[in-house]
Amino acid sequence: MATPVSKIRFHEPQIEMAHGAGGKASRRLVEGLFAPLLFGSSHGPLGDAAHIQINGTPIAITTDSFVVKPLRFPGGSIGELAINGTVNDLAVSGATAEAIVCTFVLEAGLATEVLEAEVRAMAQAADRAGVLIAGGDTKVVEHGKADSMYITTTGIGRLIAGVEISPQSVRPGDKVLLSGPIGDHGITILLARGEFDMEAELRSDTRSVLPLVQELVREAGAGVRWMRDPTRGGVATSLNELARDCGHGIVLFEEKIPVRDSVRGACELLGLDPLHIANEGQFLAIVSAEHAESALQVLRATPGGEEAQMIGEVCEQAENVVLVATLYGGSRLVDMLVGDPLPRIC
Amino acid sequence: MATPVSKIRFHEPQIEMAHGAGGKASRRLVEGLFAPLLFGSSHGPLGDAAHIQINGTPIAITTDSFVVKPLRFPGGSIGELAINGTVNDLAVSGATAEAIVCTFVLEAGLATEVLEAEVRAMAQAADRAGVLIAGGDTKVVEHGKADSMYITTTGIGRLIAGVEISPQSVRPGDKVLLSGPIGDHGITILLARGEFDMEAELRSDTRSVLPLVQELVREAGAGVRWMRDPTRGGVATSLNELARDCGHGIVLFEEKIPVRDSVRGACELLGLDPLHIANEGQFLAIVSAEHAESALQVLRATPGGEEAQMIGEVCEQAENVVLVATLYGGSRLVDMLVGDPLPRIC
Repeated sequence: MATPVSKIRFHEPQIEMAHGAGGKASRRLVEGLFAPLLFGSSHGPLGDAAHIQINGTPIAITTDSFVVKPLRFPGGSIGELAINGTVNDLAVSGATAEAIVCTFVLEAGLATEVLEAEVRAMAQAADRAGVLIAGGDTKVVEHGKADSMYITTTGIGRLIAGVEISPQSVRPGDKVLLSGPIGDHGITILLARGEFDMEAELRSDTRSVLPLVQELVREAGAGVRWMRDPTRGGVATSLNELARDCGHGIVLFEEKIPVRDSVRGACELLGLDPLHIANEGQFLAIVSAEHAESALQVLRATPGGEEAQMIGEVCEQAENVVLVATLYGGSRLVDMLVGDPLPRIC
Repeated sequence: MATPVSKIRFHEPQIEMAHGAGGKASRRLVEGLFAPLLFGSSHGPLGDAAHIQINGTPIAITTDSFVVKPLRFPGGSIGELAINGTVNDLAVSGATAEAIVCTFVLEAGLATEVLEAEVRAMAQAADRAGVLIAGGDTKVVEHGKADSMYITTTGIGRLIAGVEISPQSVRPGDKVLLSGPIGDHGITILLARGEFDMEAELRSDTRSVLPLVQELVREAGAGVRWMRDPTRGGVATSLNELARDCGHGIVLFEEKIPVRDSVRGACELLGLDPLHIANEGQFLAIVSAEHAESALQVLRATPGGEEAQMIGEVCEQAENVVLVATLYGGSRLVDMLVGDPLPRIC
């Protein structure tokens, strides 16, 4: 095995918050520095999980660090997020989580009750998702060298039969399905920080999307071309990445995109686009035109999928871009997230 | 699957540095809080890697966060340590690393060249160990909320045929093999911090021990009962854990334990025991009496194993304790590491 020699294209002098926000800056760092050095030139589009083979058995693997602030927020906490996020990354890659390992970087002086609450949240989330926690590691750093705690979870899973997810299989005419309302998680975190004088009846949407993915795949099989959980950078960033990777354009129908009034209101006040706000319990699926309507009905009939919508379609024109068709017959271009309006949301 | 209900036995009010040091305090935290909540009551002794099944294929998995300070030191750096440590945890569990995924928690303001150096170190270490880096994740926290960077690596591997590692298979009369001199890594880190007015010609021993493990297993097969890489807490902590888990005692022959003069000197000055100092490129093996001598010869004939020694044996008496037999006919008890004389060594 030769050391990869792909060229580094990341020339920014230092790391900024935006490099961790999941948008354009993150993509520059990953594609310009990590991918050429670590993954070599053979690496395709960077998905939510990698699929590899061990002794001939295909296995999906995914890893994420969680640095969300605050640790607890309406509807969830860092521990729950760490389990659900990993289960979801596997699910949208077409795999069922089988085991998770976790590490903790703890700050000296952290109250044991704070740690215990998160460990309990992890155990409960793993129990709900039907996944085993197989092992872990703990490091402690001096007080002030971490923000209470950071958690890293890695999940491995087995592939769901009959489905293969790939941007290359996406075709013009395919439909864009969305499992439910967007922006709940990001706006909940924003409000939980108390930096804005705003209140809303809003909870994070953190949950496992695996049951919905399983029903979708059971119904549409190979008609499911691609899936993604739109976390950091939101729906707009996920779909822009897809458009780039598949070489087609995507048109969204504005009136079909489910957004709660409280999320829309907060976004308007803060000048944010709900399409850029992170979700932790929703997923996008590109489904063939043939299977899309029945797939949507199956999602809506599954608990937790009642608000699913067909929000757009893949088109031949407008290569590599995401357009939102408005109610009034116009359209606007939606880019990937730029900058980091919402740091540390997961 | 029911949520585990094992009782929490960890009642210390807050987390201290010692809880991350790998010794007694770490064991209290893991066994008293993490294990009962996360792993349920069914979990056996906590090894370096968990072995699970995916679609009937056995797979080893291990995860570790790295918070070493300073990031670079004679003989290695955090990136190299993160890859080698994961390869080694799999190796001593009887598995060959196949793929590693990694996450970075970066501090805003980190110079790109510092990050690039570590990513390169990871790529080179992975290349040397013959393991694929399959994916990763990056988070950025505010300046001051991490100490430059923390890296988490998770490795999965396939089991090496013909060997099964378990404390329960250890028998009185089995021999203790050690791959080479101890304490190099821990003392190198200590000196690299410059807190003591000491200098020494010393380098971290960070390396993959997989080639040595493979040769050992090829020679001794099922005669290899147990292995461990004695990182945090050193040889004494690893062997005390083994003694506890296997129910036998262990006697070490002091004159056989390889320690460089510079390590011995630094330990004497600082009141430390080399048996408590972390290693990052050595491993311990318990081998049946029948296979021990030939196993030792094979280790010594393998590049990097020239200084291997048979340092002790398992005995029926002295249940659960580790004794060091001195040159003068006496013996002293060596406990697990207590406290944290060397914080953040990996």
